[in-house]
Formats: sequence, C-alpha cells, structure tokens
Amino acid sequence: MELTSHPPHVKQPAMSEDIHQGYRDPGLAVLKKYDIAVWDRVEIETTKGLFTGLILPRSKTEDAEHIVIKMPSGYNTGVHVESITKIKRIGRREGHYSIPEKEFPYDKRKKNVTLLGTGGTIASRLDYTTGAVVPAFSPGELYGAVPELADICNLTTTKLFGVFSENMGPEQYVVLAKEIERLIREEDIDGIVIGHGTDTMHHTGSVLSYMIQNTPIPIVLVGSQRSSDRPSSDAARNLINAVYTAAHSDIAEIMVCMFGPTSDDYGLLHVGTRVRKMHSSYRSTFRTLSDVPIAMVWPDRYVPLREYKKRRKDKDVIVNPAYDDRVTILYYYPGMKPDVIDSLIDNGYRGIVIAGTGLGHVNSALNKSLKRAVDKGITVVMTVQTLWGYVHMNVYDVGRYLLELGVIPCENMLPEAAYMKLCWVLGQTQDQKEAKEMMLKTIAHEITEREPHNGYLVYQGGIPEVEKFLSTYKK
Amino acid sequence: MELTSHPPHVKQPAMSEDIHQGYRDPGLAVLKKYDIAVWDRVEIETTKGLFTGLILPRSKTEDAEHIVIKMPSGYNTGVHVESITKIKRIGRREGHYSIPEKEFPYDKRKKNVTLLGTGGTIASRLDYTTGAVVPAFSPGELYGAVPELADICNLTTTKLFGVFSENMGPEQYVVLAKEIERLIREEDIDGIVIGHGTDTMHHTGSVLSYMIQNTPIPIVLVGSQRSSDRPSSDAARNLINAVYTAAHSDIAEIMVCMFGPTSDDYGLLHVGTRVRKMHSSYRSTFRTLSDVPIAMVWPDRYVPLREYKKRRKDKDVIVNPAYDDRVTILYYYPGMKPDVIDSLIDNGYRGIVIAGTGLGHVNSALNKSLKRAVDKGITVVMTVQTLWGYVHMNVYDVGRYLLELGVIPCENMLPEAAYMKLCWVLGQTQDQKEAKEMMLKTIAHEITEREPHNGYLVYQGGIPEVEKFLSTYKK
Repeated sequence: MELTSHPPHVKQPAMSEDIHQGYRDPGLAVLKKYDIAVWDRVEIETTKGLFTGLILPRSKTEDAEHIVIKMPSGYNTGVHVESITKIKRIGRREGHYSIPEKEFPYDKRKKNVTLLGTGGTIASRLDYTTGAVVPAFSPGELYGAVPELADICNLTTTKLFGVFSENMGPEQYVVLAKEIERLIREEDIDGIVIGHGTDTMHHTGSVLSYMIQNTPIPIVLVGSQRSSDRPSSDAARNLINAVYTAAHSDIAEIMVCMFGPTSDDYGLLHVGTRVRKMHSSYRSTFRTLSDVPIAMVWPDRYVPLREYKKRRKDKDVIVNPAYDDRVTILYYYPGMKPDVIDSLIDNGYRGIVIAGTGLGHVNSALNKSLKRAVDKGITVVMTVQTLWGYVHMNVYDVGRYLLELGVIPCENMLPEAAYMKLCWVLGQTQDQKEAKEMMLKTIAHEITEREPHNGYLVYQGGIPEVEKFLSTYKK
Repeated sequence: MELTSHPPHVKQPAMSEDIHQGYRDPGLAVLKKYDIAVWDRVEIETTKGLFTGLILPRSKTEDAEHIVIKMPSGYNTGVHVESITKIKRIGRREGHYSIPEKEFPYDKRKKNVTLLGTGGTIASRLDYTTGAVVPAFSPGELYGAVPELADICNLTTTKLFGVFSENMGPEQYVVLAKEIERLIREEDIDGIVIGHGTDTMHHTGSVLSYMIQNTPIPIVLVGSQRSSDRPSSDAARNLINAVYTAAHSDIAEIMVCMFGPTSDDYGLLHVGTRVRKMHSSYRSTFRTLSDVPIAMVWPDRYVPLREYKKRRKDKDVIVNPAYDDRVTILYYYPGMKPDVIDSLIDNGYRGIVIAGTGLGHVNSALNKSLKRAVDKGITVVMTVQTLWGYVHMNVYDVGRYLLELGVIPCENMLPEAAYMKLCWVLGQTQDQKEAKEMMLKTIAHEITEREPHNGYLVYQGGIPEVEKFLSTYKK
C-alpha cells in the first residue's frame, strides 16, 4: 500500500522521460531491436496482419508481453510480441511526454477529501491535455490535469492497489473497508472518493454498503467510461462531481457518481446496491434500477431526488468486512440441467443466488438438486433476471414448490446486490435460518418497499419515433 | 399432440360442470372430506396460517397436491394438501361456471390464422368475463371470451403441449418448428400465432428465429402478464393484436407481440432475437434492446418503425430444428473461481456463453480453465451482461488475451440470443472454426451493425422529476 500523507502538497517526482517508458522485457527487447521509442508512429507487421498507430508508454503494473499502440480509431490495442515480425517507424512525435504537474494548493478553510485508488480507468487515464493514456494519480498530477479540483477541496491520495475492475475481489473489498474505517476514525476528512474501473463498480458499491454502515461522511465511487485522451471523455467531469459530492454534499451513503444523460449536462448519484452498469460503452451506463437516483450533481451543486441518510459528525461508523467467497450466481436458461447445481454442491459452495425467469422460476428438472443443495446447508436465494421488479414466488406452483424447499425470495434485490450480500452474510454465519433473516433485513436500499413508476425505464420516452407518431395520431 | 381441424368451426364440447373440476387425489379427497366445491368461498386453516379465498378449478396438466384459491388481492395461491388442517366454507358462488362458448364464424373471404398452444398464461387464463382463471383454448372458447377475434380472421387452434414457460426446452422447440413447417407447407394459412408463457417467450422467439428462416408469413408469439380475471389484464388485447398481425400484417418474421407503453394504447412487435423480458410483473415488460421494435400495433392497424422482411407467397421456408443441449450461460461475478468452468468441462458441455462485465471481461483467475475448455474443443463465446451495447475485446489486455485463447466476441448479441444460437449451431457442427463462422453470421438481427441512439432506454425521458427540474433550471 502506497500512502501519500495529508495535507497533500508534497511534490511528486516528475515522470520519467525514458524513451521506453514502462516497457520491460520481452516487449522492451523488441522495441530496442527495431530502434523504436514511445510516441513513435509505427507500422507493425504481425502474423495476424498489419497494425498502424502510436506507441504508447506503459505502466509498471501492466503485462510485459504486449506493445500497445493507439490506433487511428482512438482505441488502444496491444500487439503480442510473439506475433511481431517487423516494426517500421513512419513518424516520430516531437518532444517527450510528462504529466504537467503542479503543487496542489492547500487551504485550511477548504474541506478535506481523500481519493483512494484501486486501479481502473480514472486513475490510469486521467490526463486530458496530451492525447495519451498514462497514469495520473498523485495530487500534483491530478491538479495538473484537472485544476478545478483545487477550487473544491484539499486533496489527499492513497493508492491501495492497481488492479483492473474485473480483477477486484474479496481481498480488495476487505482492504478498502478497513482503510475507509481507518480514515473515518483517524483522519480529519470530510469525504472519501474511490477511483474504480467501471466494470464491477456496482459490485464494489454493493459490498461496501453492507461492510460499512452508519458512515458519518459521503463515500463516493467514481470512474470513467471513455479514456481522457478522447474528446468525449467523462473522466474529468465525473471526478469533479464526485469530489464535490464528497466535500460538500450532505449525503452520508455509499454512492456511485457517474455520467447522467447522454449530454454532458449533469452527473447522477446512485445508491451502491441499486445501481448497475447497463451499457457496455455509453457514458450514461450507470442506472439506478427500480428506484430514482439519490441526486443529480454538477461541479458546484447537487439536487436530491429522494430522501437520504445525512452527514453527521457524531455518527459512529460500523465496519464489518466479513466475506465468504464460496457463493455463485446461477443465471437460469431454458433446459438448464441439474449437473450445474450438483457440481456446485460437490465443489463446496455455501451460497447460490439464482437469477430466475419471470417472478422467480426455474424448470422442474432442477427441483431435486436444489432440494439436495438446501438439505446440505447451502443457502439458496432467488432474484429475477428481468432486473426490474420483485420476486413473487406465491403466484405459480413452481414458485411455491421452491419456497417449500427453502429457497429465499429476495424481493427486488438485484442479482449482483444479492450475490455480494450473500458473500457478506455467509462470512458471518453458516446457519440457514440466520442467513435468511440477514438476507431479508434491508441495510442500504437493496430491498425497497415499493418501486416508483419512474423507476422502470419507460420505453415511450426514449423513442422519438413513437412520441412523434403519437402526437400526430392524437390530432 | 391434439389437433383441431381447419376450417375451425367444429363445435367443442362444453366444459364440465363437475363441482370438483380438474381436481384429482389427494386434492380431490380433501375437498370431498370438507364438502367443498370449486367456486366456494373458504377459510383454509393450515400449519402455515389461515388462507381466505375462492376455490378455483384446476386444469388436468397441473399437479394434484395443491388446492388453489384466488385471494382477495387478486393473486392465486396454492395450498399444499399436507399442510391443511381444516377447510370451512364461508360462502357459495351462485350457479356453476363454464366458458361461454359460441361457434366461431367461418367466412371464406377472411384470412386464416392458426393458433398454436404451448401452455402458459394466455392459453390457460384467457377468459375475462367471469372473474376466474380457467383454460380457454378451442376456437369456440376463444370466440366466447374474445368475440373481436372473429372480425379479424378465421381461427384454427392446435394444442401442441401444456407446459409452463419455464419448462419449455429443446423437445418443445423442435416440435414447434416442425409443426410450423407443416402448417406453412401443407395448410392454407396467412399467419401463425403461438400462445406462450411470458417467462421464456424471448428464448423461444430467439431459437425459432434460427430454426425457421425465410418464412413467407408472420409468426407471432403472444402471452399475457396479468391473468384475464384481473381488471388490468393484457390477455385479450395482446391476443387481438397478435392475431391481427398474423392475419393482416406484411411482416414475415418471427416476432413477439406484447403490451407497449404502461397505458393500454398500443402493442409492440419485437424481433425474436432482440427482445427480452425486463420487468417481473409490469405488462410493458418486453423491450427490444439496442434497436427499435419492428412496429406498433393496434387491433386494426400497425405502423412499422423500421425495415422488415416482407410477406411473400413464393418464399420457400427453410426449417432446421438442430439442437445441442450441452450449452450453458456463465454469468460473470467478481471472484468467480475456475472450478465452475472445470466442472462444465468435466460434465461434457460443448458450448459456454459468457455474460462478461464491461466490454466482455472476466477475471484473470479464469484464464487457465478457459484455455483448457477451448483446447478441449468447447466453443466459448462472449456477450455483455450490461445487455445494451457491443462486446469490444480489443480495448484492454484482458479482452485481447481472451481473444487469443479463441473466445468468440458476439458483438451485440443478447446473452439469451447467443445461448439459443449456440445450442442451434452445435446441433449442426462440433467444429470450432465452423461454429465461430455460424455464430457470427447474422440470421435474424441477433447482431446489428449499429445501435440507434434510441435503442438505449434513455434515463431522462423516464424520470419526470428530472425533466421538471431541467425545465425550471433552463429558464
């Protein structure tokens, strides 16, 4: 763990001007062989075809087997060294690259925010002045890249780890929860921001919502969908909104702060347990499901859309980083066969989250194995793969049978939120009855009593053709 | 298979007036013991508490262990006979019940439509005149319940099977495809409607889109989200829209016809491969993802929203009901362990559809097992669990590594559409290279070249608070 002390005005060393910046063997050897430096414009001949682009610097946490280039499309790609037959330089970038670094100003009248780095897009790609993708993380680097941050607060940064979002897991969740507890108990801070890759940001938001309860200050997860070298990047805007929320908002919850509409207009603050990534590439990908978001947020203000838990200095945070990783999600499909469940039983799983069809159904071929699972002490819970709406297992025979078996209906908990909660619950008890009680006792909006009408993405509103036709039709 | 001959004006026998209609032992014995008949209003004392409601008739395909009552809430529930300690009659319904049955008129100038029954809500719950839930399926019964159908076409019905939606599987898909081929080749019909439970309607729509290509006539799946005894039922409206589409529309595709907006205004026709059930209980649950629906539909007209394949008598239908059921969906979650993949390999699976995070990612702990799977000849394909958007595995190292392993990126195919297609493809070849080519060759919109902006459910449009605030803010 690499810590930057608070207050955050320690000058960081300038980034290396090394012409092979970040490359190690075998990639480094290949660059040397063809006399190629980072920022050279090249043609790479490979066994899989010709690649053209700009050689990018790499960070030390990345693998050593790929030469990474920025293609004319704006996307980056990695070329495996073993596939390379020749590299030809077709142009050289003038000058060398470093992140413009300025001392982050400290103002004792300003709020104090700590940014925890986990890896992922926002930390590794924040620079938006140079057309390149490199890590920017120290307060000085962030200030150089996004000077607006200094108007909002004093910033400290702590790099907890450098893993991609898809590699986040139990180990990281526990470290995060413990560090957040330490910060709240020992440091004089007004809010915490967690830089996170977007792939599993909602999973982390969910698990932290169970592990960290009764927080006195805002805890805000943030990332970006487009790297900061692209004109449409959401990195700077999301970070500014998140830091503003942490420093100045009254909302003491675990939140995800990401891009709102398709325009650059505002950001949204989502409850950690009710948010989900809904589009693989759009910036407006994070949506609150079956509820409205907590608030809309701009760089200098926020507007709540519903009730929330308030910031209060005298709140005593409760941190419980329990976790059992022997839990799985079973996403139902027609013709699912019992062997998938039998294998989970045999492999020692302790919890199964079913994402069933409709109101919470699976085919009858699974009944026997599900009964065996429950009889063996495995906690089996039901969610819906429709994502929106509630489990209702009393309506059809199939649901009633599963209820009789002991399958636990998780109301309108999202499958991901139920998965993270079951990991947390089974980290504390292996007793099925107790696990059931804990699963169904709401902690942080993972179950809501009702779904507002506008919690479902209304089709008509998003389809101009439909609206246009209807307006003509009504005349 | 139970066939009703065409033309469809054969009188069906009236439904039984049996006071224990549809009940078999042990349920029948319990009713007799307490002198209870269907339609009696009762209080049932059980080991799990007291239930109050109206005893409903049952169909022969349902289980014999439950007494089913309609509760004051409008929902039905089944009470297991072993839990019953006493039943007390608190009221008796006047008269007995039968579906009002009228001879379906035949008019040789009208179009001919065949309704195929598979079970599920629309067939078992269609009556909306009596406040009860019973099967209505013969042309005479349907005419008695929904007289508007006779204005649209001549109707034939064929009950293929009576299984709940969640029990639909390979056996039923093959029977359906073969019966559709026979109808198109041998009968003089203008369109086919398939009554289907809603849980897996999109899976059936998807698999039929691959099995049945180049159809000369419309093939329309239809169901209902609310049983027809509830005031808000969508059963009659959906059926009328579907029958109209089959009889009169120019659209020769495999479609799902379901409720459109939250009001009763119009229905929507969705492509079988791009539609998904998105809400567990709303009537407006079926949505086209990453594209616009084919058309809006009313009981007497339709308005196309995009290009479609046209009805043409001289088209020669191609039917290929191939299927391999050794395929699974792996829905990624943080901390997923390789044992889930190892078990699939050991259990003889031939295809794995991953629903990855972000642009198509899984954690690096799975790499070794995924490599083993591909090396063993298993076809592994990638889709995104965001549901909206494309797989892009070239952007990050993790994706590139999976591509190098041989994991096939399925563009913007929905996980369910990819699952059904892989079952169909592996029913024809076990060669990985050939399987890859077939997976990536678009048959029926399962991959689209681009996603229209209004193919993503735009948040702002569905949130009146947001719009209201923005309109104030802009002033």
